[in-house]
Amino acid sequence: MSVKNGLVSLSNLTTMENLSTEEVMALIKRAQAHKSGTAEFNLPKQTFASNLFFENSTRTHHSFHIAERKLGLDVLEFDAQASSISKGETLYDTVLTLCALGVEVCVIRSGVEHYYEELVNSENITCAIVNGGDGSGQHPSQCLLDLMTIYEEFGRFEGLKIAISGDLTHSRVAKSNMMMLKKLGAKLYFTGPAAWYSEEFDAYGHYANLDRILPELDVHMLLRVQHERHASGEVFSKESYHRQFGLTEERARLLKPTAIIMHPAPVNRDVEISDNLVESPQSRIVQQMSNGVYTRMAILEAIMQKQNEIKQEKNLKVVGASISGAISSNLETIV
Amino acid sequence: MSVKNGLVSLSNLTTMENLSTEEVMALIKRAQAHKSGTAEFNLPKQTFASNLFFENSTRTHHSFHIAERKLGLDVLEFDAQASSISKGETLYDTVLTLCALGVEVCVIRSGVEHYYEELVNSENITCAIVNGGDGSGQHPSQCLLDLMTIYEEFGRFEGLKIAISGDLTHSRVAKSNMMMLKKLGAKLYFTGPAAWYSEEFDAYGHYANLDRILPELDVHMLLRVQHERHASGEVFSKESYHRQFGLTEERARLLKPTAIIMHPAPVNRDVEISDNLVESPQSRIVQQMSNGVYTRMAILEAIMQKQNEIKQEKNLKVVGASISGAISSNLETIV
Amino acid sequence: MSVKNGLVSLSNLTTMENLSTEEVMALIKRAQAHKSGTAEFNLPKQTFASNLFFENSTRTHHSFHIAERKLGLDVLEFDAQASSISKGETLYDTVLTLCALGVEVCVIRSGVEHYYEELVNSENITCAIVNGGDGSGQHPSQCLLDLMTIYEEFGRFEGLKIAISGDLTHSRVAKSNMMMLKKLGAKLYFTGPAAWYSEEFDAYGHYANLDRILPELDVHMLLRVQHERHASGEVFSKESYHRQFGLTEERARLLKPTAIIMHPAPVNRDVEISDNLVESPQSRIVQQMSNGVYTRMAILEAIMQKQNEIKQEKNLKVVGASISGAISSNLETIV
Repeated sequence: MSVKNGLVSLSNLTTMENLSTEEVMALIKRAQAHKSGTAEFNLPKQTFASNLFFENSTRTHHSFHIAERKLGLDVLEFDAQASSISKGETLYDTVLTLCALGVEVCVIRSGVEHYYEELVNSENITCAIVNGGDGSGQHPSQCLLDLMTIYEEFGRFEGLKIAISGDLTHSRVAKSNMMMLKKLGAKLYFTGPAAWYSEEFDAYGHYANLDRILPELDVHMLLRVQHERHASGEVFSKESYHRQFGLTEERARLLKPTAIIMHPAPVNRDVEISDNLVESPQSRIVQQMSNGVYTRMAILEAIMQKQNEIKQEKNLKVVGASISGAISSNLETIV
Repeated sequence: MSVKNGLVSLSNLTTMENLSTEEVMALIKRAQAHKSGTAEFNLPKQTFASNLFFENSTRTHHSFHIAERKLGLDVLEFDAQASSISKGETLYDTVLTLCALGVEVCVIRSGVEHYYEELVNSENITCAIVNGGDGSGQHPSQCLLDLMTIYEEFGRFEGLKIAISGDLTHSRVAKSNMMMLKKLGAKLYFTGPAAWYSEEFDAYGHYANLDRILPELDVHMLLRVQHERHASGEVFSKESYHRQFGLTEERARLLKPTAIIMHPAPVNRDVEISDNLVESPQSRIVQQMSNGVYTRMAILEAIMQKQNEIKQEKNLKVVGASISGAISSNLETIV
Repeated sequence: MSVKNGLVSLSNLTTMENLSTEEVMALIKRAQAHKSGTAEFNLPKQTFASNLFFENSTRTHHSFHIAERKLGLDVLEFDAQASSISKGETLYDTVLTLCALGVEVCVIRSGVEHYYEELVNSENITCAIVNGGDGSGQHPSQCLLDLMTIYEEFGRFEGLKIAISGDLTHSRVAKSNMMMLKKLGAKLYFTGPAAWYSEEFDAYGHYANLDRILPELDVHMLLRVQHERHASGEVFSKESYHRQFGLTEERARLLKPTAIIMHPAPVNRDVEISDNLVESPQSRIVQQMSNGVYTRMAILEAIMQKQNEIKQEKNLKVVGASISGAISSNLETIV
C-alpha cells in the first residue's frame, strides 16, 4: 500500500495502469487541497527537476514548470536542439547524465511509445521518471487532471454518463481515461468517425450515435484531431468533421444544463467544438488547464515522498550498520 | 488618477498613449529610485510572469527577465518554437492558457501590430499585458528608458533640443518618443533620408539638416536601420548611409560638450554611428541598456500595484457581503 | 598569490595556463568540500550569471546551470537563436549588453578559438568570463573535473601512469590535461591513430602502443571521436576505430584492478569504448559528470571571490577619499 495519511508515494509515473483507484483518489484530493491552499508542503532540501520535451507543448510543459516552482523545486529546462542529442546522444545517456548532475525528477515527453521502459529499468538511472506523454501511448497527468475536473464537479464517478468523442486511436489520453473511468464506476460512450474506433474499446463502453446520446450525458469529453499524427489524405475537412462529429452550437443545446464540456486542448476551434462554446458556461476547458497545475503538484509531491522514504531507509541502514558495528566492537572490547 | 504616493498603477502597458505625463514622470522617478537602491518593494506572494518573444531580442527580453527576477517574480520563458503555437495554436489561446496556469503578467513581443488589442479586451484573459514591441508599432518600455536617460542627464525636458535621426518610418520607438517628448516640452528635429520621413511627424517637430542642427543639440537620438523590415533593394549601402546620415567622428565634433548621444541598440557600428563613438564619453548607449532594467522594474511594479488593488477590492466586496449577510441573519435572530 | 585561506580568486577562467598548480590544487580541494557538503558559501547579494552556449552541449551547460543555482546565483539562459545575434549583433556587443543589464559572470562556449580575448581585454566589459570551451582550443572546467576525479581516486598525481587516447588533435581537453598532468608529476602516454598525433605532444609524454601500455596504467583517459569537427571522409568506421584503438572488453581485461577508465562524454558507445564498459565498476565516467558540478561551483566561487575583493577595494578608495576630504575640510576650518 502506498498511500499513508492521504499522501501517495510513487517511484515513477509512466502509465495510469501503475495506479490503484485508491492512489488515484488520494492524488485527486491532494490536488484539490493544493488548489484550495490548504495543502502544506515543505521541500526538505534544494531539489532539481528537469523537463525534457521532445514534442511541442504549451500546456503540459508550462504546467509542470509552474507546479515544480510552486513546490519550490529548481527547474532545469532541457532544450533538445541545443543539447548533445544533436551530436547523436541517446535519451538513455542524456537522462543518465542529468542524474549524475544531481537531477532527481525528469519529466519527459517523447514521440516514442514506451520510451520510459529502459529508463525505469536501469539501475544507474536513479532519478524518477514522470511521463509527460509518449507518442500515441499514455499521458497520465492529463488523465488525472481530467478526473480531478470531473470529481470537482460531481463529487463522484459512480454512475456518471460520459462520452469520449473523436480521435480515439491517436489520443494519448483517451485510453487511460476510458480504463480509469470504467474502474471508477462511470458509464462510457464513444462517438466520432467509425474509422477511429477500435474493438479494443468495447471492454470499457460502447460506440454510440452522438446526437442520440447527448441529452443523457453528464460529461462530454472531446478529443483533439491530431492532424500531426495522421498520414496525409486520411483527415476530414474542418467543416465536414465539425458538422458530422463536432460539438456544434445546435448539438450543445441538447446537453443537460448540468452537463459539462471537456477538451484536453489545444482546441481546434470550429472543428471539435464551436468557437463560441470553448469559453461558454458549461465548458470546463479553462478549468482543466488550471487543475493541471494542482494535479502535477500532487504527482511531483508523491515522487518526492517516495524519494524521501528511500533516503530515510538508507540512513536507517547506515545507522543500523554503525550501531551494529559499535555493538560488535564494544562486544569485542568486553570480550 | 492612477498615481498614489508616487506609485503608478497600470492594468496593462501597451502604448505610450495610455500614459499621462504625470504617470510618465512617476515611472521615471521610481526607476531612478530602483537604480539608486532606495526603492523598497516586497512581493506579497509567489507571482509568475511569462515572456513571449516572437521576434528576436537580446536587450528587451533579458532586461525584462532581470527586472522580473529583481522584483522576485518567477519567470516562465515561453519558447514559441517548442510550443503548441507550432501546432497552429493562436496567440489568444496561448495567453488564455498561461492565465489559466496562473501567470499574472505576460510580456509579449510580436511582429503583428496591435496584437494586444484582442488580449486586453478579452474578459477571460485576466493577466496583464506588457507590450515588448509590436511590429513597427510601439515599444513603450524602450520609450520610457530613453526618457529616463534624458531626465537623468538634464533633470528636465522643457526646452531641450533633441534630434531623432534615421529610420523614422520603421522605428517602433520613434513615434512614441516624439509624441511624449513634445508633450514634455522638448523641441524636436528629425534628420535622415527624406524617404523615411512622413508628414505626420510635422505635428511634433520639423525635418532638418543634420550638419546644421548638430551644434545646437542637447540630445542626438539615433535609430537603428532596420534591415530586416525593409523590402530588398530599398536600403542604402552601409558606407553611403554612414557618410550621408550617420554620426561620423567628424560630425560628433560639432556636438556641444554637454550633448549626449543615444541609440536603442543593437547598433550597426559604422552605419548609424561610428564604431569609435559607441562607447565614447558622450555616448549614453550602455547607460540606456542599464536604465532599461530599472524602467522595466517600475513598469512591472505598476502592473502588480494594480493587481493588488483589484484583489483588495474583491476581498472588500466579499467581506462586505459576509458582513451584510451576518447582519441580516442576526436581524432574523432578533426578529 | 591568489589563494587565501584555501580560497582561490580569479578574474576570469579562460585557459588552464592561467592557473598555477597551487590554484589548481585549491580548486580541487574546494570542489571536494562542496561534494562532501562541508564547504560553506553565502552569496552576499543577488547575482546574475548568464550561460551563452553557441555550440550544443548537455553536460557542460547543465552542469554550470546547476552549479550556479547551488551557489544561489540567478541564471539567465542566453538562446543565441532567439537573440539579436541573428540580427547580426557581435559576441562583443552581446556581452557588453549583458554587463550593462547587470550580469556579473558569463559562461561562454563558442566554436571560435580564443573568442574570449577581446572580451577580457575590454575595459567596458566588466563581467567575468568563464570559458566553457572554445573550438578546438581549451575547456578548463572539464580539465579541472578530470583532475578532481583522478585526485579523488589516488590522492596524488605524482608518478601516476596515464594514457590519453584518441582524437588528440580535435580535443579541447587533451591539450589542457596533458600540460597540467605533466606539471603535477604524472607520466603520460598517448595512443590512437598516428594521424591524430602531433609532435608538439612530445613535450608532455610519448606516443605508445595501447595494448603494450594498458597493463601499467593507473588511468586510461579516452577522448571522444569528434565526428562534427572532422572534414568528411577522414574518419574511421565505428567498427574499425573500435577494433584498432578503442577500449574493447578484451583490452579492458589487461587493466590493473585499481586502474580507472575516464571519458569526457558524450561517449560514442562501441567506438571509443565498449558499450558494456561505460557503466562498469572501473569506469569513472558517471562520476566525472557528478564532479563537474562541484568543480564548477569552485570555479564560480573563485570568480565571485575576486569580484568581492574588487568591490571592497573600490569601497576602501571611496571611504579613503571621503576621509581625506573630511580631514582637509576640517583643516580648513581649523586654519
